[in-house]
Amino acid sequence: MREKKTAVDRELERLLGDGPGSRLFEAMRYAVLPGGKRFRPLLLLVSGEAFGGEAGTLLPYACAVELIHNYSLVHDDLPCMDDDDTRRGRPSCHKAFGEGPALLAGDGLLSLAFEVLAGAPADAAGSGRKERAVLEIVRAAGVRGMIGGQWLDIGYAGSAVPEASYDDLISKKTGALILAAVKAGAVLGGADAAGLSAMEEFGRNVGVAFQLRDDVLDSGKEAEGDGARTRPNSVALFGTAGAKERLERAVGRAVAALDGAGMRSEELRYLAYGLLILDEGGGHE
Amino acid sequence: MREKKTAVDRELERLLGDGPGSRLFEAMRYAVLPGGKRFRPLLLLVSGEAFGGEAGTLLPYACAVELIHNYSLVHDDLPCMDDDDTRRGRPSCHKAFGEGPALLAGDGLLSLAFEVLAGAPADAAGSGRKERAVLEIVRAAGVRGMIGGQWLDIGYAGSAVPEASYDDLISKKTGALILAAVKAGAVLGGADAAGLSAMEEFGRNVGVAFQLRDDVLDSGKEAEGDGARTRPNSVALFGTAGAKERLERAVGRAVAALDGAGMRSEELRYLAYGLLILDEGGGHE
Repeated sequence: MREKKTAVDRELERLLGDGPGSRLFEAMRYAVLPGGKRFRPLLLLVSGEAFGGEAGTLLPYACAVELIHNYSLVHDDLPCMDDDDTRRGRPSCHKAFGEGPALLAGDGLLSLAFEVLAGAPADAAGSGRKERAVLEIVRAAGVRGMIGGQWLDIGYAGSAVPEASYDDLISKKTGALILAAVKAGAVLGGADAAGLSAMEEFGRNVGVAFQLRDDVLDSGKEAEGDGARTRPNSVALFGTAGAKERLERAVGRAVAALDGAGMRSEELRYLAYGLLILDEGGGHE
Repeated sequence: MREKKTAVDRELERLLGDGPGSRLFEAMRYAVLPGGKRFRPLLLLVSGEAFGGEAGTLLPYACAVELIHNYSLVHDDLPCMDDDDTRRGRPSCHKAFGEGPALLAGDGLLSLAFEVLAGAPADAAGSGRKERAVLEIVRAAGVRGMIGGQWLDIGYAGSAVPEASYDDLISKKTGALILAAVKAGAVLGGADAAGLSAMEEFGRNVGVAFQLRDDVLDSGKEAEGDGARTRPNSVALFGTAGAKERLERAVGRAVAALDGAGMRSEELRYLAYGLLILDEGGGHE
């Protein structure tokens, strides 16, 4: 798993290597490197390899997903959105580079993700795997996915969010890209219909678990938050014990989905069980 | 040409038809509809048909280019960028919907463009036309294209820009997407190497002419501008007469590129010559 993370980090460094208007690239690198756990790209790589996909084929898609994730963080941190001054323990992109530059750096990361997807090697003629994997990812990034989720999120700023809406919000804002990483990996690896269906169930539950874990970790440090606004939060909805219980159930369902589906599932299980480790050091951002 | 514009407008309306979080879609529609002259999508359609491409095949790409253009307008108008309160004679998107919503609407338009490209019908196996056309468009939208140009533009805010840098800025900020529309159309229409090379020369000069015309038109209304900042401008660099002369030369070079290249070029000439009409009513935005 460590090797996979290194491969992702190296490829991201290469993609964000020097470019024209190099301060723009500097802002983009700042937002992406050194970065977090690379949970989403690892999920994509592991999902693909579970069906026999090759790391080299999967890597561009994994990096595209991570670029999309990081663009969303840069834009969400802006003053007109969540107004967060820090990210990963240092000034957020707009605090370090200014708002206009951060806006453009976010646009640049999103666009670069699409360049990477568009430029990924073509399929063997007729397999259509590239096309399907690209569609999974761009739809997850889009208005019916992450952007729709963030829209709901800012709409609930400071007000209580009903449970049903919370689920919808999270499935879009956080869940969509995680599910897309799982499905794109499986498609590229050559999963059949049964395999895809198992991975869909796995990915959906991993997305839910990821957000629940995030909420539980966040609630532990509420006092020191910069208090920009109250976010819709499962701990507020269900209490810490309730959220933890739901987290365990979601991980259980994710892992159960893999049983009998016939793929190599050790690393998938490893990533899912990792979501149960509730300490900061193990935190996925 | 009017029929083509109607087809583009209809397809854009369909793409922006009701969606989840419908106020998000409302903001996106506000930014795109009723909209301007649709110069870029028309250019793509006409470039494709010049080589025998079919309108139905070309239309998604044409709409994607227009969505990308409009996302860039929404983001460029934001207070942290050009800070423009009006666009097409009415409040700009963030004035009408708020800054956070406008940021998301812009992200949404860009993402929708990529969804449309990714979802465009696949090629006949092995032709690779879709893949090449998509690459032209996403690269033009990216950090080495429009975003790099806007980066240069905000960097020169309020200061004089040297002529060489002006050319670089314009070729990215305005020229890249126009050139990509021309090349993507030609690729989809099945242009051979000679045809593509002619279209590249055509597209490059149309991009230059487009910006010169825009500068000349803008300079006429300088007094009523909202004065947010001084933009790099060919009229400031070359004077009005100098800019007009360059405009005529660029259109001349664009049209000359078509001679002897063997495609049906009447409509291409029509669009190029249209750039010489210097009145507001004929303005391309």
